[in-house]
Amino acid sequence: MATTGVMRPGHIQLRVLDLDESVAFYKDVLGLVETGRDAAGRVYFKAWDERDHNSVILRQADRAGVDLIGFKVKDKATLEQLDKDLQAYGVATERIPAGELLETGERVRFTIPTGHVMELYAEKTDVGNGQPYTNPDPWIAASEHGIAPHRFDHCLLYGPNLEENLKLFTEVLGFHLVERVLLEDGKSLLATFISCSHKAHDLAFVAHPEPGKLHHLSFLLDSWEKVLRAADIMSMNRVSIDIGPTRHGITRGSTIYAFDPSGNRFETFCGGYETYPDHAPITWTFDEVGAGIFYHDRKLNERFLTVVT
Amino acid sequence: MATTGVMRPGHIQLRVLDLDESVAFYKDVLGLVETGRDAAGRVYFKAWDERDHNSVILRQADRAGVDLIGFKVKDKATLEQLDKDLQAYGVATERIPAGELLETGERVRFTIPTGHVMELYAEKTDVGNGQPYTNPDPWIAASEHGIAPHRFDHCLLYGPNLEENLKLFTEVLGFHLVERVLLEDGKSLLATFISCSHKAHDLAFVAHPEPGKLHHLSFLLDSWEKVLRAADIMSMNRVSIDIGPTRHGITRGSTIYAFDPSGNRFETFCGGYETYPDHAPITWTFDEVGAGIFYHDRKLNERFLTVVT
Amino acid sequence: MATTGVMRPGHIQLRVLDLDESVAFYKDVLGLVETGRDAAGRVYFKAWDERDHNSVILRQADRAGVDLIGFKVKDKATLEQLDKDLQAYGVATERIPAGELLETGERVRFTIPTGHVMELYAEKTDVGNGQPYTNPDPWIAASEHGIAPHRFDHCLLYGPNLEENLKLFTEVLGFHLVERVLLEDGKSLLATFISCSHKAHDLAFVAHPEPGKLHHLSFLLDSWEKVLRAADIMSMNRVSIDIGPTRHGITRGSTIYAFDPSGNRFETFCGGYETYPDHAPITWTFDEVGAGIFYHDRKLNERFLTVVT
Amino acid sequence: MATTGVMRPGHIQLRVLDLDESVAFYKDVLGLVETGRDAAGRVYFKAWDERDHNSVILRQADRAGVDLIGFKVKDKATLEQLDKDLQAYGVATERIPAGELLETGERVRFTIPTGHVMELYAEKTDVGNGQPYTNPDPWIAASEHGIAPHRFDHCLLYGPNLEENLKLFTEVLGFHLVERVLLEDGKSLLATFISCSHKAHDLAFVAHPEPGKLHHLSFLLDSWEKVLRAADIMSMNRVSIDIGPTRHGITRGSTIYAFDPSGNRFETFCGGYETYPDHAPITWTFDEVGAGIFYHDRKLNERFLTVVT
Ligand SMILES: [Ca+2]
Ligand SMILES: [Ca+2]
Ligand SMILES: [Ca+2]
Ligand SMILES: [Ca+2]
Ligand SMILES: [Fe+3]
Ligand SMILES: [Fe+3]
Ligand SMILES: [Fe+3]
Ligand SMILES: [Fe+3]
Repeated sequence: MATTGVMRPGHIQLRVLDLDESVAFYKDVLGLVETGRDAAGRVYFKAWDERDHNSVILRQADRAGVDLIGFKVKDKATLEQLDKDLQAYGVATERIPAGELLETGERVRFTIPTGHVMELYAEKTDVGNGQPYTNPDPWIAASEHGIAPHRFDHCLLYGPNLEENLKLFTEVLGFHLVERVLLEDGKSLLATFISCSHKAHDLAFVAHPEPGKLHHLSFLLDSWEKVLRAADIMSMNRVSIDIGPTRHGITRGSTIYAFDPSGNRFETFCGGYETYPDHAPITWTFDEVGAGIFYHDRKLNERFLTVVT
Repeated sequence: MATTGVMRPGHIQLRVLDLDESVAFYKDVLGLVETGRDAAGRVYFKAWDERDHNSVILRQADRAGVDLIGFKVKDKATLEQLDKDLQAYGVATERIPAGELLETGERVRFTIPTGHVMELYAEKTDVGNGQPYTNPDPWIAASEHGIAPHRFDHCLLYGPNLEENLKLFTEVLGFHLVERVLLEDGKSLLATFISCSHKAHDLAFVAHPEPGKLHHLSFLLDSWEKVLRAADIMSMNRVSIDIGPTRHGITRGSTIYAFDPSGNRFETFCGGYETYPDHAPITWTFDEVGAGIFYHDRKLNERFLTVVT
Repeated sequence: MATTGVMRPGHIQLRVLDLDESVAFYKDVLGLVETGRDAAGRVYFKAWDERDHNSVILRQADRAGVDLIGFKVKDKATLEQLDKDLQAYGVATERIPAGELLETGERVRFTIPTGHVMELYAEKTDVGNGQPYTNPDPWIAASEHGIAPHRFDHCLLYGPNLEENLKLFTEVLGFHLVERVLLEDGKSLLATFISCSHKAHDLAFVAHPEPGKLHHLSFLLDSWEKVLRAADIMSMNRVSIDIGPTRHGITRGSTIYAFDPSGNRFETFCGGYETYPDHAPITWTFDEVGAGIFYHDRKLNERFLTVVT
Repeated sequence: MATTGVMRPGHIQLRVLDLDESVAFYKDVLGLVETGRDAAGRVYFKAWDERDHNSVILRQADRAGVDLIGFKVKDKATLEQLDKDLQAYGVATERIPAGELLETGERVRFTIPTGHVMELYAEKTDVGNGQPYTNPDPWIAASEHGIAPHRFDHCLLYGPNLEENLKLFTEVLGFHLVERVLLEDGKSLLATFISCSHKAHDLAFVAHPEPGKLHHLSFLLDSWEKVLRAADIMSMNRVSIDIGPTRHGITRGSTIYAFDPSGNRFETFCGGYETYPDHAPITWTFDEVGAGIFYHDRKLNERFLTVVT
């Protein structure tokens, strides 16, 4: 089968400091669609063009950051097989019962070498993208409410053990390495960009001493003009922009980094090439990491390596 | 594993009426890169951003049309397995030795129910996309020579037996159905759009009494502004435009159809959503097929259903 | 003074067949802002980014078409001077009292050689563009309600006597000829595109036996992507598209022609170069008029020369 | 007449530190067309879409900066009248004979209150924009050589006496005030943006103790996508980018500031609204100047107020 195993990042649970303020931000500024609230007080969102019930889940907490990231796998048989594969590889897994997240099936949870909690799941209710499955239009009013990305697309995570982490994702979970950044020694990994699909990245990691940190979660727009529109909306709403509009050398995407009200960095981006597992990975040397991250400025800003949640 | 089996359309062999004129057209107007010529007189091209040695192969002939379409599979083991699967399913296959196409490994050839010759192969030499694999730029001068698409993307083929054909692609070759158009009876297939990836289509078929016909081969651009630039270049070079710039309702892509000097229709397009195998297919009813094909005009032009090569 | 005399097309009064349906169309599909209704039953609109009270006025009538087009002049002294100049040139003028059109000063009305009623006026109330004059944002919510053009931009009018008409506009009213299309004889005018500003055209005329006809009124968008969005909105609302998205050779603008519910053709366009009175005019020969009008198709559609209101 | 008096910024003479390096930069990176060299060693350029012989003139010198800026006026009678008007206003003028600048008529030179040398002239040879005046295409190959702006568009100049300067430009030279920035006192001018046309600005000034300084000269692109392309080309050529791509609040334009090899700041921008002399000026208060200059970041970078040549 052409697409099997892990399909895509499906949900992310974020910690926010003030739930009301955050809900307003994710709904009216970022332009996600609220799809539910659960007994634990969590608020569920999806991007307008996503079909599954939820992709971003907000949880009020004392500090910002990411609780967990879930990947949708092809089907329940795949879920069982991947659980076995993880255990066989030496990764401890845990089952979270169906329904613990709204409209979401049973999840297999585990911690990756960078210290982040990952989940696999096979089922999340299809609530549609606001369009019928018969004779749909290409877009709807919701696609112009706030920034209104098409989907939650990927994350960049900070933590230790990048080599070990890459091995887990490529040898067990079916990802392939698309791009990587090397440290001064020309060998060790500063960053990896990996894909379980044809996207230039479904996940990315940067080496960092503290485990389990979030650099950014990212949302897909469909044009560079929509990136400008996103920046304008950020300014109108006094959203703190980290950098952008600009381009990444890595993946070629054009992008903005900004911060949600709790200080979680998010990205709204478009573009980037498509990758296949037969493509040789691209390597960035340490002296060119600036151009790799921010192609126009060709240097990192101080925040890139230090500000995470 | 996340990407397995059939990966993507990799090459298409086209028949052209005048080789010199066609080479000039594909090189300087469409803006492909010539990569070789073989003893049989065939001329090989790749799009600037493709890494494999060739994707479009021109063969001089008395009538225009398509000889064959090749799909790259993940690896040689996959090729062997798919050959077995095809035979087990009752499809006769033939082996074409490595090197029969320049820089291309052994191919498994078979005829699909619509009468088109398909091939699977696992190896084609990586000649790069004109960029180093270390610290590349996002684009190069070649990306502005002629229309200069990123890649050969998909084909729309005309022939009979769409139901049977869909079964072969979904049950044996790992494709999934993304969109379909129904005939007046609300049941029979007028058209299918199928994917072996996250692209909205890697292949499409329209029901047609005569087997083995080509409606168009398609090339990917990266923005609607590049679609305008393509139309301008077509006009400057007196290329016959069939329709466009416009949008497809099906796949949402924005597009131009035009004709090469031999009358083979080609498309330069951008956009379109991304699909996953868990997405329910979209259905277009017969009364809305106009909007499905040409979203702005909401009606087919006469040529759409009749002019093929 | 650098900008003097006639400044810009300021208002157009259109005849529509069903006022309610037309108001709904101009408000929610085209996305103009309704600014008033008068005792005569006329409904007034402005584009969101215009500052003057009105630019499009709808009047219910038995047949579609244009009643009159008004140009704003620099000030009242200019109005008086131009009235004298017109009379001295032999053009009969009439005064329409202030307030006959809502929030509009006294008008000088006259008929041009093509049979259209023109007006000059110096005053129309500034109601703002929905933004403060202090610290404005670059755009507002109204700029995404419907097609939402920035402004009423120009008209293309059909009528006789193009040579005489051109003389009036250039010798008395301070316009300059930007582009022209010649008939088969290589001398007579098929079309003229004239400007009183740096716009590639503030008015255009095509030779036609019947006087006083409207080919289209045109609205400015700010990008080719907004042209696509306009076409999508037209399709969603079943607006009849005449042609486009495409490009004009003349003025270089990218464009859509479509019809309002009464059959009045309107254009939503962007781009086009800027012109100055020292620029030599561009000439299109009769054999290339197709490319001049519709640059991609390089031929006129039948409707271009025949369907007017 | 609708367009009279001063028409547009026509030429700027820049001082550069190394002529060869600068010529290479202006030709191949910025993408201007070299049109001549004179006996004094100056090198002349025009943007591809300009019709007059030259717009940017480079002169080798020990320090970077601007020698003079020339404005084209409507005709020789206008030149004589404006000379008289300047003298009557108390401005000393000087005549520079025709031919002192290649293909340029007699110039009237004077110094404005900010200490910059300005010139008026009525004649510069039309060398065309690389297109015939009959049946032209919308663009040509030169429009993709380097950044390839359409035209030299405006300058931002730093110097003292902004109130007095504004009076000269509006009362004698026919400009109108489009936008202004006020100092903390809510009265004094920090910056003025003035136009002799419908452009949002043909010149801009920022209050600065040292007279005659250049903040940037600016070149027009025709889309936000071309702004991205310009930033990419800057990165490929290691051009030092000051800021951008971003948007200005003032004029709404989207923009990049960067430095030529001598440290002269230049801008490549697109967009911005069109203005007319009846439009009330827009005011930016001191506390919002950040958003006025850099709309996304909403704060000035240190270089904006300090780095000039
Ligand atoms: Ca609260
Ligand atoms: Ca030949
Ligand atoms: Ca009615
Ligand atoms: Ca030198
Ligand atoms: Fe990212
Ligand atoms: Fe297609
Ligand atoms: Fe028009
Ligand atoms: Fe500027």
